[in-house]
Amino acid sequence: MEILQGANKIMQQADKLAVFSAMQSGLLRAYLTPEHKQAHAQIADWMKDAGLQVWQDSVGNQWGRKVSSNPKLPPLIIGSHSDTVANAGKYDGNLGILLGIEALNLLADDDLPFHVDVVAFADEEGTRFNTTLIGSSAVAGYFMPEWLDIKDAQGISMGQAMRDFGLDPKLAGNDKYTKEQVLAYLEVHIEQGPVLENKDLAVGVVTAIAGAKRFQLKVQGMAGHAGTVPHDLRQDALCGVAEMISTIERFAQANEIVATVGKCDVKPSAVNVIPGEVHFTLDIRSQSQHTLENCSDQLLKQLDLIAQRRQLQLQSEVFYQAEAVPCNDKLQQQWASVVKNQTQQDACLLHSGAGHDAMVMANITDIAMLFVRCEKGISHHPREQVMASDVDVALKCLIEMIQVMGAKETNGQ
Amino acid sequence: MEILQGANKIMQQADKLAVFSAMQSGLLRAYLTPEHKQAHAQIADWMKDAGLQVWQDSVGNQWGRKVSSNPKLPPLIIGSHSDTVANAGKYDGNLGILLGIEALNLLADDDLPFHVDVVAFADEEGTRFNTTLIGSSAVAGYFMPEWLDIKDAQGISMGQAMRDFGLDPKLAGNDKYTKEQVLAYLEVHIEQGPVLENKDLAVGVVTAIAGAKRFQLKVQGMAGHAGTVPHDLRQDALCGVAEMISTIERFAQANEIVATVGKCDVKPSAVNVIPGEVHFTLDIRSQSQHTLENCSDQLLKQLDLIAQRRQLQLQSEVFYQAEAVPCNDKLQQQWASVVKNQTQQDACLLHSGAGHDAMVMANITDIAMLFVRCEKGISHHPREQVMASDVDVALKCLIEMIQVMGAKETNGQ
Repeated sequence: MEILQGANKIMQQADKLAVFSAMQSGLLRAYLTPEHKQAHAQIADWMKDAGLQVWQDSVGNQWGRKVSSNPKLPPLIIGSHSDTVANAGKYDGNLGILLGIEALNLLADDDLPFHVDVVAFADEEGTRFNTTLIGSSAVAGYFMPEWLDIKDAQGISMGQAMRDFGLDPKLAGNDKYTKEQVLAYLEVHIEQGPVLENKDLAVGVVTAIAGAKRFQLKVQGMAGHAGTVPHDLRQDALCGVAEMISTIERFAQANEIVATVGKCDVKPSAVNVIPGEVHFTLDIRSQSQHTLENCSDQLLKQLDLIAQRRQLQLQSEVFYQAEAVPCNDKLQQQWASVVKNQTQQDACLLHSGAGHDAMVMANITDIAMLFVRCEKGISHHPREQVMASDVDVALKCLIEMIQVMGAKETNGQ
Repeated sequence: MEILQGANKIMQQADKLAVFSAMQSGLLRAYLTPEHKQAHAQIADWMKDAGLQVWQDSVGNQWGRKVSSNPKLPPLIIGSHSDTVANAGKYDGNLGILLGIEALNLLADDDLPFHVDVVAFADEEGTRFNTTLIGSSAVAGYFMPEWLDIKDAQGISMGQAMRDFGLDPKLAGNDKYTKEQVLAYLEVHIEQGPVLENKDLAVGVVTAIAGAKRFQLKVQGMAGHAGTVPHDLRQDALCGVAEMISTIERFAQANEIVATVGKCDVKPSAVNVIPGEVHFTLDIRSQSQHTLENCSDQLLKQLDLIAQRRQLQLQSEVFYQAEAVPCNDKLQQQWASVVKNQTQQDACLLHSGAGHDAMVMANITDIAMLFVRCEKGISHHPREQVMASDVDVALKCLIEMIQVMGAKETNGQ
């Protein structure tokens, strides 16, 4: 039997991991489930094959360490998540874990001035308990004891699920890391967007994880008979919202944000009745927290003016917000230099519109991320796809990145 | 006991009729129900009190005739409907019947050169069998025998309901009128819109009953992650529809139509997903059939261009259409002259955006309608309201209109 190495091995491993699923046809792997246990047992085996020391932490994350013979610095952590949404793709999260393990496998003969840990975070998506990023939160010291009382759809609490899994919920998060205990955190992840494919590039360097603000908006007008009310006497809530959506779109294009109206519910919703009320959501994201706040304020003011001009009542409420998290500048530059070396092309810099474990790890250490092109930007879907040739580029970049970080220490930089 | 006459009597009668309802609190009077029978018995009594000859026709419409001693022309018909929607107002339809009866009551001493018939159409709304305008359709010769097989929500066919009511379904529509048998058809109705209130006028002369076209539209784009897809790579179906709705609104304002998007359903409808598909309805109305057709074509072309520019797929389908029905020019002028005489103001000419029995009667005779102001244009709702002073104006106008029509014949015009 051929002993595979590199990208082809990772592609096969991704296929194999996808078998550990709660769905008959399709991938679903939630936190503290039999599939979680099976997948992490497989990951631990691959870690051992790569010569790593393995352990499971207090919340069920799987770790593997490439031990340094003479560590002069705290460990470098490379990670991503092994859990999935329902009917997921095979690469979201899992690719980053497999790349980390294989990079360390291929670096087996290098002795680095720090331990390198690969971690498979057991929950990022929040599929089972709605609370997201449980795995990295525990590592970064943000595990909340009250989470243990959250129940899944079957009424099983997280604490009970931990006991069933073989964990002691009293110890959950006790093995957290402090700032002094981590050199840096690297994460390789599929882009989950179309930017790299559009630029025909295998990988890209992440500048920041976008912050997000989500608003629930309600526009109140006056319902009326579609035949009997002339346009100049209407207070059509949907016409108002249509103007707002166009304004949001233009504003986003003119500024460094993305802004999405994802839900739009019309009342009373009858073919012959002028809409009297519309509820819609607005999701605004930017890689700069300042831009996010500033643009949100400006945009809401513009929507208010539209409502006033049309004699509509606008109510808005923020129901979710997450701060923008920048990636470390020096690590970004190192990624960019590595990418240029591996691809002979200037590195594409892009931000992440989606959340990642890295944004939690940023609370205790410098973070940096590399994105891998995925087909049509499709993710959270069985059609999620990456090319082995791109995985090869990502693997070479990750190996060189680790080596550069080691060499800098050796050279006293 | 004071014997009431005129508007106050009509207001009391409207209150009394509203008691014949299938709802405990609220008005619902559907075709061929006990309430229909009770209301028409009451109407027949009032007709007799006004000196009219009464009869019920083959489909359950209630008639009352002011007999001419020497008719030189076929009968003038004055009518409206006695049925209601669920949770209805008291004046929609019923006001026109009561005005007709009271006008003839007050004209008891006048001998006209034609009989004048007041008809209470038993079904206009289609509340019970979905098929609308059954009463006037039978009179105008458009009763369809297959309607007898239509079942209500309880599974009772219209034919069975007729038998239960005491009618012979085999005779339904047999007593239809021909063009030679009718002089003209007059209908007084609440406006069901805000135009008269906005102009501070009691009544207005109807120019036409608008035609309508209704479209079901589907816009297909590409769903995507609200955070990871930049705006220039999006095919956001809702942004496309927002632009379409604004275009529809501007187009309607610039042309002689009203156009309403009443339903708008977004898929997948998640706060963090770019809308991939939107279904919406478009209701276009105009008092001119030519304008309606022309504007519909132009507008659909504009929507197509928006879809093309945004790389969206637009599908549209007409699912309902009704032709515009003009009111008779001479009768409009007579109404206008009568209104000016009664109110000392130029008559307001307006079209009807809603359908009425008059549009069916237009198939066999000249029609003309007078609208009465209603509060805030509210109709099909318990808050539907008219003022006694406006009813007084409408009554005086109707009496003068009948007298003018009689005098014209007498004068050989």
